[in-house]
Formats: sequence, structure tokens, C-alpha cells
Amino acid sequence: MRTSIATVCLSGTLTDKLHACADAGFDGVEIMDADLTVSYESPEEIRALCRRLGLSIDLFQPFRDFEGVSEELLAENLHRAEAKFALMNRLGAETILVCSNAGTATIDDDATAAAQLGRLADLAAEYGIRIAYEALAWGRYVNDYRHAWRLVQMADRPNLGTCLDSFHILARGHDPAEIEDIDGEKIFFLQLADAPQLDMDVLSWSRHHRLFPGEGSFDLSSFLTHVLKAGYTGPLSLEVFNDTFRQTDVTGTAAHARRSLTWLADRASAANDWSTDRLPAAQTPRSVDFVEITGSDLGQADETLNQLGFTFRGKHRTKQVRLWTMGSTRIILNEQSQQPEPHLSAIGLLVDDAGQALARGAALGAPVVFRRTYAGDHELKALGAPDGTVIYWNDAPAEDTWVSEFHGGQPAVDSSHAVDHINLSYRWHEFEETVLFFHSVLGLDAQAPENVPSPQGLVRSQVMRTHDGTVRLPLNLAPPTAPLPPRHIAVTCTDIVGLAQSAHERGLHFLRIPENYYADVQARFGLGAEHLATLRELNLLYDRDEAGEFIHFYTPSIGGLFIEMVQRVGTYDGYGAANAPVRLAAQRRRPHPHPTSR
Amino acid sequence: MRTSIATVCLSGTLTDKLHACADAGFDGVEIMDADLTVSYESPEEIRALCRRLGLSIDLFQPFRDFEGVSEELLAENLHRAEAKFALMNRLGAETILVCSNAGTATIDDDATAAAQLGRLADLAAEYGIRIAYEALAWGRYVNDYRHAWRLVQMADRPNLGTCLDSFHILARGHDPAEIEDIDGEKIFFLQLADAPQLDMDVLSWSRHHRLFPGEGSFDLSSFLTHVLKAGYTGPLSLEVFNDTFRQTDVTGTAAHARRSLTWLADRASAANDWSTDRLPAAQTPRSVDFVEITGSDLGQADETLNQLGFTFRGKHRTKQVRLWTMGSTRIILNEQSQQPEPHLSAIGLLVDDAGQALARGAALGAPVVFRRTYAGDHELKALGAPDGTVIYWNDAPAEDTWVSEFHGGQPAVDSSHAVDHINLSYRWHEFEETVLFFHSVLGLDAQAPENVPSPQGLVRSQVMRTHDGTVRLPLNLAPPTAPLPPRHIAVTCTDIVGLAQSAHERGLHFLRIPENYYADVQARFGLGAEHLATLRELNLLYDRDEAGEFIHFYTPSIGGLFIEMVQRVGTYDGYGAANAPVRLAAQRRRPHPHPTSR
Repeated sequence: MRTSIATVCLSGTLTDKLHACADAGFDGVEIMDADLTVSYESPEEIRALCRRLGLSIDLFQPFRDFEGVSEELLAENLHRAEAKFALMNRLGAETILVCSNAGTATIDDDATAAAQLGRLADLAAEYGIRIAYEALAWGRYVNDYRHAWRLVQMADRPNLGTCLDSFHILARGHDPAEIEDIDGEKIFFLQLADAPQLDMDVLSWSRHHRLFPGEGSFDLSSFLTHVLKAGYTGPLSLEVFNDTFRQTDVTGTAAHARRSLTWLADRASAANDWSTDRLPAAQTPRSVDFVEITGSDLGQADETLNQLGFTFRGKHRTKQVRLWTMGSTRIILNEQSQQPEPHLSAIGLLVDDAGQALARGAALGAPVVFRRTYAGDHELKALGAPDGTVIYWNDAPAEDTWVSEFHGGQPAVDSSHAVDHINLSYRWHEFEETVLFFHSVLGLDAQAPENVPSPQGLVRSQVMRTHDGTVRLPLNLAPPTAPLPPRHIAVTCTDIVGLAQSAHERGLHFLRIPENYYADVQARFGLGAEHLATLRELNLLYDRDEAGEFIHFYTPSIGGLFIEMVQRVGTYDGYGAANAPVRLAAQRRRPHPHPTSR
Repeated sequence: MRTSIATVCLSGTLTDKLHACADAGFDGVEIMDADLTVSYESPEEIRALCRRLGLSIDLFQPFRDFEGVSEELLAENLHRAEAKFALMNRLGAETILVCSNAGTATIDDDATAAAQLGRLADLAAEYGIRIAYEALAWGRYVNDYRHAWRLVQMADRPNLGTCLDSFHILARGHDPAEIEDIDGEKIFFLQLADAPQLDMDVLSWSRHHRLFPGEGSFDLSSFLTHVLKAGYTGPLSLEVFNDTFRQTDVTGTAAHARRSLTWLADRASAANDWSTDRLPAAQTPRSVDFVEITGSDLGQADETLNQLGFTFRGKHRTKQVRLWTMGSTRIILNEQSQQPEPHLSAIGLLVDDAGQALARGAALGAPVVFRRTYAGDHELKALGAPDGTVIYWNDAPAEDTWVSEFHGGQPAVDSSHAVDHINLSYRWHEFEETVLFFHSVLGLDAQAPENVPSPQGLVRSQVMRTHDGTVRLPLNLAPPTAPLPPRHIAVTCTDIVGLAQSAHERGLHFLRIPENYYADVQARFGLGAEHLATLRELNLLYDRDEAGEFIHFYTPSIGGLFIEMVQRVGTYDGYGAANAPVRLAAQRRRPHPHPTSR
């Protein structure tokens, strides 16, 4: 399908926006009247630039507050419209969006509104222009798409049709199934926006909180299906008013926007078994294959992993890279870095078909990452996530493939340890793009967000996970003024007390938990004195719900990350969210001086 | 009255918060259970620190989800409560906040709830603790303060009273007048919070958007009056959950919070003609006395003012300072600066009593600024605004006082020019504090905010003004990632076309307005061709409403500021908000190279 985007979604000047839309691969744009008004380029220049960039001008918008008015105001409105039609002729735009009157309507009468829309259409016809009439969710008399469609039918002009906007329809809870009753040729335009489920006035929700498809709560795949079944053949166009996207880098945001449409078109096609717009199937990860930590000196990581009981599996035969494992948890330490601070640089995932996973990600606009391999090295497929973290896919057991590239370590010790979750932190303006990436490229689903208090503000936490919980990525959104919290790798075990004791004996410095925390645990859970003493002595944290228990501890940070060991008892399915404020407060303290010997 | 604040209002560790509260002059604190839980200091250490800092611990809070439950859950809840009572004994806190059950209540029966609260009070009595029971706005069965008070009466225990929170009462629209029916001695605690009028779910509104008194839409003066008339004698305490305040500098935010209570206590006292807690009366400014621009080289400002038709009134007799005037508009250019970039450094206001204005501001915690004066110089009173801009007060005509310190210029030319408004821009985290400062110290009132699109995101605009519009300060809140927009001084005139033509002849470079803007003006207003040609030729902007017209133009920026000339026709009372996006887009372009000669 053809794709389009409203220039209001993006930051910058109109020409900045047009270049970014073309770079991202959009076929066309909706030009916002206000963006043209503040632009120094003439309509003819914008028209020529769009032509050179290969962008069609699919819509000029919006034209507000037209119908349902007195004859006197109608004359003014027709004057206003005619000036815009003349401008559109210069611009080369053929369709204008007319929103239902939200400001000046005084006559609540369908016959009047339809007659006035008819006069507008007749005037537009003189300029060769089509009117796409849309019901705003907060229109004074017309705020339901079915009502707008009735008025279009009543006016009955060839150049008058309707525009459907997913936000205005789904935010009001109107049933989109009735879209199929509309004549598809009379759906002159389709605007798509997602949104989080918020309980607030619909105007503020629409103006500030819209999201690109796949980032919110709306079922846009079903919505789009109804529109396509009605016979709509125009472009899928994004109209997303969002305070963040309006100020983020225009090129990155346009690419992010384009990815959302690719994902949505595939989702709708897949749901309907259509053959067009299909992507390679999502390869939902079966487990975490490995996690890679990169830094110029990872001696402290070696020491911590050893203290936790990881097994050293050797050095890579050609690279400055080491492997540690614990059960199916594989941590690669990579010292081939220009960036000295240790950081979580890559995540490897086990999937059924790595080639398909790569092809899907690439089709969704993610950059393919080249991994330098030597003769005999296993070739892993890889893509870059929006923040630069590399995602690798493997479709064969690690022990049979890339693990054999490591030499000189000890044999694997069988155990039940596995990666429980990988906690990733982001800046406020990276968050939505990351959610869309993990959802569309990796096939993970977003859980409901939570807010976690920290000494430097609220941290928003949203878990992305596979349905079965095998792969879980809690994402943390840092407050704007706070430093990014460290990321972490959580590893499961079945005897956390024994493991913590051993680690303690091997000299591990645990993240020290305040005494007051244990008084609170005791108040909330009424644990036995001995159990509580063990938790306190070993700096273990505790949570419990109807399903089971969660016991965990943290290592101090190694650069920008740390390790968490967790034990799940019963079917506990959370992450100890009640303990996160304790961790965030504890991590803000100056870390222990860490003596290392080489 | 005694003042207190909940530690959840502030950023940092518990000890950071306590130091900041003491520094700001609070008498006591409400200690949040969660803040203590994540603290490494023992309850005894916190108690001792509070004693040393002179802070009473007025409340320990919150205790949630207690009443209206099964006997089995009640036993658990009593266990949980008893652990907190023991902790409070260590901490030296005597009153605990118990919120109405929002999570676990299953029995909607007043007799049961009252009996369970009675059992809690009896347990608390063993520890010498008082229970302050509060109706949360989203409590499952109890969400009205009158209901909470009925339960307190039914339970009838000496150590069980109620806690009133302005947010929970006013957000629900409950009539606060009935507070006077409560026995004042049974109001164990009072929590104050303001909030903007938002149409959203009350839980999100409460958790993220509360404001300090004077910054939102609630009538807290009336609210407080009802509480005091009921006979409440405890502290006025702030409980403000706000995403911004949770991450801003703790010392500054505590001082800001304290100012809000001083203002509120005065406001309530004044409304009731009480003699306590009164501040010197607000000196609402009668006009702008002067505006001061500071920078190390202000030659471009001299040139621009000359081109606009300002009169050079001479050099200061002892300082590197010059004066330009146009009617009652006085602009001081101050080159005694360490900061080279020209910026708006001070605003002088004409008031009835400058001494009172200074005393009021100082009582509200604003720092008194020392102005270096020499023999014979007029002594002006001055305070620092939160962002460092200096506010001067004068209570005698400028021409009779400080203007005589300037020598060597031309005589004043009589005219009707005056300062129309001064537009000030702020970072997102400076905004609320600034609103409170201008409201409490200067006596300006906040108008409804608007959002203005810019190429780098939405700019929030909120006008602070005197009732009669003589002094107007539009405040602009920049998007987090955008540079601060320049500030500006707007000056009225009665013949803007003639003034612009003269300025043009004198070589002024106007901020160039795009051609497309005039096509839009023509579409919206249908001006005559000649009128439009004049606007276009002179780069004038135009607005019109039912009340009149507004014509204006901007100079290019001189460092961090520029000058706007405006003509108001009829009783137009706005600021050309529809033109602000044009200005913001135009200012983002590279400025004209500005040749200056000395």
C-alpha cells in the first residue's frame, strides 16, 4: 500500500520534514497549512521539491469550522476556503481535509450542514479539488464518523467524500465495523494514529498523546481491515500529534513512523491472509542465546561472574573476547571497544529461523550489522536496535555453533540457571521507538506500564515479553534530568540463599540494602525471624503475591550495568517492582571502592 | 501558623530532604514510609537529625488498605499496623495517616469499617499513637471527607480523628463549607495541594499533577478558612505529588514550597481580616518603570533603539550604563557585565509603596538585591526572581528620581509609547516556581495557558498580568530539548505603519516574515489589497478578533532578546498568539549578519 504522513508529526521546517519523509521511504505527505504558512518557500517551490523527492502531496489540511453556520459566516468561510483552494492549485494538492465544526457551528441541523458542505464542494470543483470531510471526536454537532458519512451522502457531490481518522473513531469507542457500510470510493482519505488508553478529555488526549501504530492500545489491525474491506484504495497516512515526536530528530522520527506503517500493513494482511504487504513472519524468541558486555577493561566483570559461580568457558580464538556461562546463561565479555565504560552492547536470541528474523527486521528499517568473522567462525545474523544495541539471532544451539570458537576454559557445568530478564534503560525521547522496535522486530508484547519512585524522580517501567515469559525485557524510562539508570542482566537460580552465601565467601560485594527495608518486609509479610535474618544478612530482597515468592539480589554496578540473581518460587510472574525504589536509592550512593588485581 | 511538608514532594534522599526543609524554614515534616524504607539511616538517627534541625515529625504516612475487610485480612492488617506503630515509636512520630481502603475493601458497611478503625485506634493507643483517617478521592467505599468523618464519629475513640486533604476534597468537587461542621479538635491533620483544572482520571491527576498553593486552580484560601473556622490548630502541611518537583533541586524546591504556604496563610488571613500571618500588602504594579538589558557590548541595542525612534537620554554619571526612552518606555543598557551575551537582566516596576513591595517579597523568601549606589543616586529597592532576573520597585515618577542620574542625552520627546508586555522564557522545571513568584510577590494573575507550535516542539505560553492589563508578562515554557526562545520587550505605538517606515529608512533589519503568512492572513481576514501590501512590505503581522485589531513587528534578536512594536486598535486584549508560530519559525533561521560601526 502507499504510505503517507502528516507534516505535523515531525520537528523542523517544512523542507526538513519533506527531506526526512523521503529518506524514510514514504510515498506521500499531508501538508499542514500551518507548516506552509511559516515556511519561506513558495507553494510552487514546495511542489517542485516534493516532485524531486518523489513525494505526492496527498492531502492539504486542516480546514476548520466550516459548516452549520449562519449565511453571513458561511460567506466568510467560503471566502476563506477559496483562498486555500487557490493555494492548493499552486501547491499541486488535490484533496483538502475539512474537519467537522468544533468552534463556530450554531445550527444543529443535518440538512443545513449538508447543503453548506455541498456549496463548499461546488466551489472546490471549480479548482479541481476534492473535499474529505471528517468528524472530529469533539465536533460540536458532528463527532461520529457515521454522522459525517450521512452528511456526505446527503450532500451527494462527486468531489465530496469522507476522511476516517482512527483516533477520532476509536477514542470515542465507536464501532469501526460499520466502516464497511461506507462506499470505499467515497473514503477519500485515511489517517492512522495509535494512543495509550488514557482517561482524560479527548481533545488533550488527541493533541498531545497520540502514538504511531503499534505503540498504544488501539486495535489498528482490525480498524484497517474494516477500511480496506470497504474498498479504500488510498494511502495509509499517519497523523500523530505527540509532544515528544514534535521535538525529536526529524530523520529518526520519520524512519520510526515509517516502520510503524510497515508493521501495521503486515499485521492487517496477516490477519486477513492477504498476500500483499507481508513481512517475513516474526520470529518470537525462544530464549536468550547470550548477552554481550563491552568495555575496554572487563576485569571487574570477570571477577563478579566468577564470584557468582559462573564458569569460565575460554577466550575467543581470534578476538579479545571471553565467555562465561551458568546453565543456559551465556555472558560474553568483549574488550574490543573504543568506549571504555562497560556497557550492555548486544543481546543474542534463539529463534526458529534466523534468516527470517533478519529479513523481517531489515524490512522494518533496522540497520543490518556486520559481524567480523574469520574462517570457521559461526555466522550470526544481526541488526541494530534504535539505541545502537545489537540484536543477534541464532537458530541452532549455542553449544553446537559459536561456543566452539572459545578455547581454554572449563567445561560447562550443568545447571538450571537461565536469563530471567534483561533490564534496559532509555532516555524519555527514545522510549516509544524502542517499544515499537521490540514489538515489531522481535515480536515481544508490552505489559501495562508502572511508575517507580527514585531519588531523582519517577522512573517509568514497561515490560516487553514473549507470551510465555521466556524472554522478558523490562524497559526503564529515566526522568529527563536524571542520569540513565544502569542496565542489568537477571539470572535465575533455584537456591538463592546458597548461591549468595557462596558468592559472599568468594568476596562478592553485594549492593547493600538498608536495614529499614527489612523492617518494612517484616511488617508486610510477617516472615519468620530466621528467614528475615538470612535475607538481611545476605542483602536479599523479597516479594510475594498470591502466585508465589520472588527473592533476589544485586551486584554493585560495573560501569553501566550490574547483575541480578533471582529465585522464583511457585508461579510468581513479576519483577519485585516494590523493591525497585530500594535498588534505585541504593545505586545512587557512591559505590564501594573496588580493588582489582590483575 | 506552623508549617510542614511531606517528604514525597521533594527529590533526593531522606536526609537531603530534611536538610532542605529546615533550610527553607519549615517547622515540621510528614515522613513518607517509602522514604524511610529506602534510607540507610535508622529511625533513631532520623529522629535525632530532625531534632537537631528543629523539625517536628508531624505525620508518618501513608498506611493503606486497612478497613472494610474480612476478619482474616484484618488480622494481617493489624499485624502490619503494629509493626509501623513500633517503628513510629523509634522515629518519635505520634500521628499516622490512614487512607480509606482503595485496594482490598470488600465489605461496604459503615458499622464494619468503623468497628475496624476502632480496633486499629485501640492498638495504636498502646503505642501512644493517633490515627488520622482520610478519604481518598478514589477510595473504594469511602471517598468523601464527610463519610470519613462519620466513620470517625461512629468509632468514637479519643486517638482517632480525620485528616483533610484539599486535593481529595476539591478534585471531587465536594463542598468544603461542611468542614466547619467537623469538631476542630478531631481534625488531626491538614494536607494542602493545589492543582490545575484537568479533565482526567483523579488518580493520575493526583499522582502526577498536583501543584503548590497559588499555582493551580483551587480556591485554597476559602478551603483553609473553613478548616480554621472549624477550629483546626495543627500545621499547614503540603502534600504535592508532582513529576517535576520530584526531580528538581531539593533546596530550591523546598524554598519554593515554603513560599506557597506563606502566601496562602496571608491570603486566608487577609480574606478573613485576621491579624496573624499577614504579609505587607501586595503592591500591584501600576506600570513598568524600566527594563534593563545587560551585556558586555550593547552597540547593536543602541543602534536598534535609535532606528525604532527611541530617544537617547544619556550616560549614567558614574556607571557604564545608558538610557533610551520612548514615551514612558525606558530601556537601560548596562555594560557592567561578566556575561557577554545581551540579556534581559532587570525589570523596574512603579508601585504605590516600594518599601512594602520589598518587605513582602523578602517575607516570601526572595533574596534582596543590593544595588551599588553612589552619593546622590536614587536608592531603588530590588529582589531577585527565581531565575536571577532582578525586580526593582520605585514609588516616585522615574523622571523625578533615577532618570536625573543620566547626563548628555537629548530631552524627552512626549509621546504615547509605553511597555505593552515583557515576554519571558523559562526552562520546563522553572515554570511553576516563576508563576508563584509573579503571583505572590508581584500580585499578577495567571491567564489560561496556550500551546504554541514551534519547529522544535510545543511552547507553553501563560500570561501573568494585572487585572487592568497595565503590566503583562507572558511566560514561555520551552520544550525540554529546544534552546530557550529569546525574551522580548513589546512597546506600544499609535501609528505602527509610520513607525515601521521610519525605522526601515533608518536601516532597521526587520525579522523577515514569510510570504505564505500573508496569503493566510488574506484567507482569514480578507484585508484590502493595499493594506495587505503594506503589511507584507513592512514585515508586519496582523490579528483581529471581535474586540479589535493587533498589528506588530519584531526586530531581529540582539543576543537573547529582541524588541517588538505593537499597535492595539479598539479593545483587542491579546498578544497575536496566532502569529507566534511564525515568529518562532522565523527566529530559528540564521540571523542577518549585522554590521555595526562604532
